Amino acid sequence: MPKYSIGVDYGTLSGRALLLNLETGEEVAVAIKPYTHGVMDDKLPDGTKLENDWALQHPGDYLEVLQETIPEILKKANVKAEDVVGLGIDFTACTIMPIYKDGQPLCMKDKYKSNPHSYVKLWKHHAAQEYANRLNKVARERKESFLARYGGKISSEWAIAKAWQVLEEDESLYQEMDLFIEATDWVIMQLTGKETRNCCTAGYKAIWSKREGYPSNDFFKSLNPKFEHVIDEKFSRDILPVGSKAGELTEEGAKLTGLQQGTAVAVGNVDAHVSIPAVGITESEKLLMIIGTSTCHILLGENERIVPGMCGVVEDGVLPGYLGYEAGQSCVGDHFEWFINNCVPKHYHEESLKQGKNIHEYLTEKANKLKAGESGLLALDWWNGNRSVLVDTDLTGLFIGCNLQTRPEEMYRALIEATAYGNRMIIETFIENGVPIKELYAAGGIAEKNDMMMQIYADVANMEIRISDSPHAPALGSAMFGAVAAGKENSGFESIFEISNKFGKIKEKVYKPIKENVETYDLLYKEYVKLHDYFGRGKNNVMKILKKIKQGE
Amino acid sequence: MPKYSIGVDYGTLSGRALLLNLETGEEVAVAIKPYTHGVMDDKLPDGTKLENDWALQHPGDYLEVLQETIPEILKKANVKAEDVVGLGIDFTACTIMPIYKDGQPLCMKDKYKSNPHSYVKLWKHHAAQEYANRLNKVARERKESFLARYGGKISSEWAIAKAWQVLEEDESLYQEMDLFIEATDWVIMQLTGKETRNCCTAGYKAIWSKREGYPSNDFFKSLNPKFEHVIDEKFSRDILPVGSKAGELTEEGAKLTGLQQGTAVAVGNVDAHVSIPAVGITESEKLLMIIGTSTCHILLGENERIVPGMCGVVEDGVLPGYLGYEAGQSCVGDHFEWFINNCVPKHYHEESLKQGKNIHEYLTEKANKLKAGESGLLALDWWNGNRSVLVDTDLTGLFIGCNLQTRPEEMYRALIEATAYGNRMIIETFIENGVPIKELYAAGGIAEKNDMMMQIYADVANMEIRISDSPHAPALGSAMFGAVAAGKENSGFESIFEISNKFGKIKEKVYKPIKENVETYDLLYKEYVKLHDYFGRGKNNVMKILKKIKQGE
Repeated sequence: MPKYSIGVDYGTLSGRALLLNLETGEEVAVAIKPYTHGVMDDKLPDGTKLENDWALQHPGDYLEVLQETIPEILKKANVKAEDVVGLGIDFTACTIMPIYKDGQPLCMKDKYKSNPHSYVKLWKHHAAQEYANRLNKVARERKESFLARYGGKISSEWAIAKAWQVLEEDESLYQEMDLFIEATDWVIMQLTGKETRNCCTAGYKAIWSKREGYPSNDFFKSLNPKFEHVIDEKFSRDILPVGSKAGELTEEGAKLTGLQQGTAVAVGNVDAHVSIPAVGITESEKLLMIIGTSTCHILLGENERIVPGMCGVVEDGVLPGYLGYEAGQSCVGDHFEWFINNCVPKHYHEESLKQGKNIHEYLTEKANKLKAGESGLLALDWWNGNRSVLVDTDLTGLFIGCNLQTRPEEMYRALIEATAYGNRMIIETFIENGVPIKELYAAGGIAEKNDMMMQIYADVANMEIRISDSPHAPALGSAMFGAVAAGKENSGFESIFEISNKFGKIKEKVYKPIKENVETYDLLYKEYVKLHDYFGRGKNNVMKILKKIKQGE
Repeated sequence: MPKYSIGVDYGTLSGRALLLNLETGEEVAVAIKPYTHGVMDDKLPDGTKLENDWALQHPGDYLEVLQETIPEILKKANVKAEDVVGLGIDFTACTIMPIYKDGQPLCMKDKYKSNPHSYVKLWKHHAAQEYANRLNKVARERKESFLARYGGKISSEWAIAKAWQVLEEDESLYQEMDLFIEATDWVIMQLTGKETRNCCTAGYKAIWSKREGYPSNDFFKSLNPKFEHVIDEKFSRDILPVGSKAGELTEEGAKLTGLQQGTAVAVGNVDAHVSIPAVGITESEKLLMIIGTSTCHILLGENERIVPGMCGVVEDGVLPGYLGYEAGQSCVGDHFEWFINNCVPKHYHEESLKQGKNIHEYLTEKANKLKAGESGLLALDWWNGNRSVLVDTDLTGLFIGCNLQTRPEEMYRALIEATAYGNRMIIETFIENGVPIKELYAAGGIAEKNDMMMQIYADVANMEIRISDSPHAPALGSAMFGAVAAGKENSGFESIFEISNKFGKIKEKVYKPIKENVETYDLLYKEYVKLHDYFGRGKNNVMKILKKIKQGE
């Protein structure tokens, strides 16, 4: 009788559960549950209006995902709860919330249901920008060593900025909450009955490191005297490495999921990072790009290096025993979506309709007929700023080389190429700073579907690219961690390395660089670098000046 | 009984005649005749295929214009031929053709009807580029002084490059032709029975100057020994200033037009230049912008100055006694047309349709709601290279400042603003080089219709703009020259100054700079200049490099 493990992947708009057969590696069933409250960026459930840049979620939605999807996959696959040995979850991050010691979210108390600060602050809640700016300023002045681990800048999306926002904007709620906890850890708490904190979110999102711990109390005090003990009061210094067991399903956890009490539960994890074992990466020199609206880069290294503009480096943050590096491009699929919505003329839509293709397909087909360099266009992929390696949200997009013959498919391809150059810039920056990369892996919908784009990425980087063969890579990775948490005696797997090597999934097709294109893209990339450095490193601050003029400053 | 003068304006696709009442200044009738053969850029009338970059016309079409439109305006206005005292014409230039001494075009001989070189080479015939390049190279090597009068570069659109193309590509036809003559002078020859050459096309298009004459025979010899005597063999050194009388209608000319034999005919002229008196400009410091697919700038000066990137400076070339300066922007209306055809999304078309507006109107309305600088965008207006002040066809267009919120109307407005910055760059270059400008005048369809654009131009330049009140400014100017040719005793006007001061037409509305916008545009223009110089003056040759890569070099 085969045993099974379950992975639950919490995305921005829905959660999905995946049932993994631990004998065959087969993904036997998947179920998806959209969040009842979705992303709240306009108003709370009771109608309370939210200000600009807010993005909240309702923690009740996360429990509904468990309640609905886990029974559904068991039923679909006709698998009994007793054959499920382990459960792992992953989440968007930093997605964080105020709770009481017993796990109750403040937003679920009647008293707080109209208070925005009582809800989950989703990763893309950007209303803490002011606090992030002040935090960075103070950290730079104090020459805090932690800054280097995060490319010189702490994001407004991360835990400390969000916690500080609560303190500054609603001190009484700040005092009321017992804990400020990542949603991934909160769900684990619901399942196991105890608080655990995983090293992935602690490391990448809460400025924690295995060697140096958190920033000093003195640093927090310099932000606000009442913030001095934020770690001991609202977070935890007890951090578990990923791959650990968080605990076992309690009676309540079992009721919630339909699984058996005592089923092993892995510590919480993050969606991008958990995809690494899903594609079978168990060693350094292999960069995983998770390509969606934005791209997240995950890489294992043997040693800690300071790489300019990386998003973070965390020991054991991805796989135990390795330094896990993260970098990112803030705008990838979003570029193409913007282009489709704003720049594609009527007759293209009409023609694509006539041919029965969607407009992305139609444009891609046209763009695919172009040779490298044929359009004469070059773009800087900064429509949403630059995350790595410049870490500058004030940078903006650029098109150069337009003429009266320039066609939409040429601009579309130029945008794709621009993201490929941005990707190469990240790769080269890692290599130059002592973190080697030799092969590329890609996951995410765009990577699976867009052949042309993957070939361009391979040609621009001059590296082979392998593609995830699971459309549910994060859920698969989480199921793997669930199996490991169950222990060898129950799941057959001792470590995440063992199960990843066996069940990691990549497609047969490998994108190999085409020599002729590599040569042309080398020339174009040189020009990209020149523009990247000219506009991105302060020689011409026109992008920032335009932004200031725009804002009437 | 009032007297009348007729102006005939030969455009790219049609000719139009205008009847001017010399008592009231009223434009009493207009008639338009599209050319039967239009622009031949694909094949000859007999089906002979043309190569890329060719653009020819059929001289028979020009005579049809006279035959149809002049009788039509007389009839419409119920004016007798005997009351028409003068006739003037203007033409696109350099639009030039091979003919026999007697005026017969070679293309009208059966022997040559399949030979492309026997036809009229239209101004936008670009197949002589190779010869222009070689001519410029040789002229630079020989340090020819004439180069400075043309911003350092002779265009492939101009007479010498086109004549040389004939010699190199069809020597026997070159030997066969007696004259190579501007279409404007050829039409005058048909009317008056004698060859005249006007100083406007000679000066701006055939490298002639009142003081220095043509380039030396030695220079032409250095291009090709057989080209040594091109001026004496195919052109003429006998150049008449504009404002002169070319002659009188012959019997044949009278038959052609339905006018009386002996009617005074002015020397040929050029469409842009002839618009100056039509808007009442009779002195220096007033820049006329004729805004169409491209913009032509005409300006009177008191002294000859060498202005970087001007298209030409010709003594008596616009109005007698003045230096006439010409500059240009190679892409203005064409920018907006490109944008409409390639970058405006489906839902904008649908919404404009619903509102019963054309798409330009709809976009303009949306763009007009934006404040200066609000979009955060900046563009370089080089979709078709840069004519003035950089004189570089290899430059290309640039958009900077894009983000995911960037909307089509913002890009549209940024393109309009970019042409306004280009315009200011031309103005400032003239001023800095000793040719003062204090007021702006605009003519052409875009100038008359696009309120927003004219306000932006006024704000960017920080100068008042007055708009031509005749939708037929060139034909009006030509009619004025016709009246002057007739002499005071017949028309009542001694000089072009006198009639222009009396009948020059500008609208009541004056676009005045708005202080707040001037300030913002000053900031934006600074950034434009930085980018203009960085990409346009050799600091970063990325545009040229992209073009080379595109061409596989």
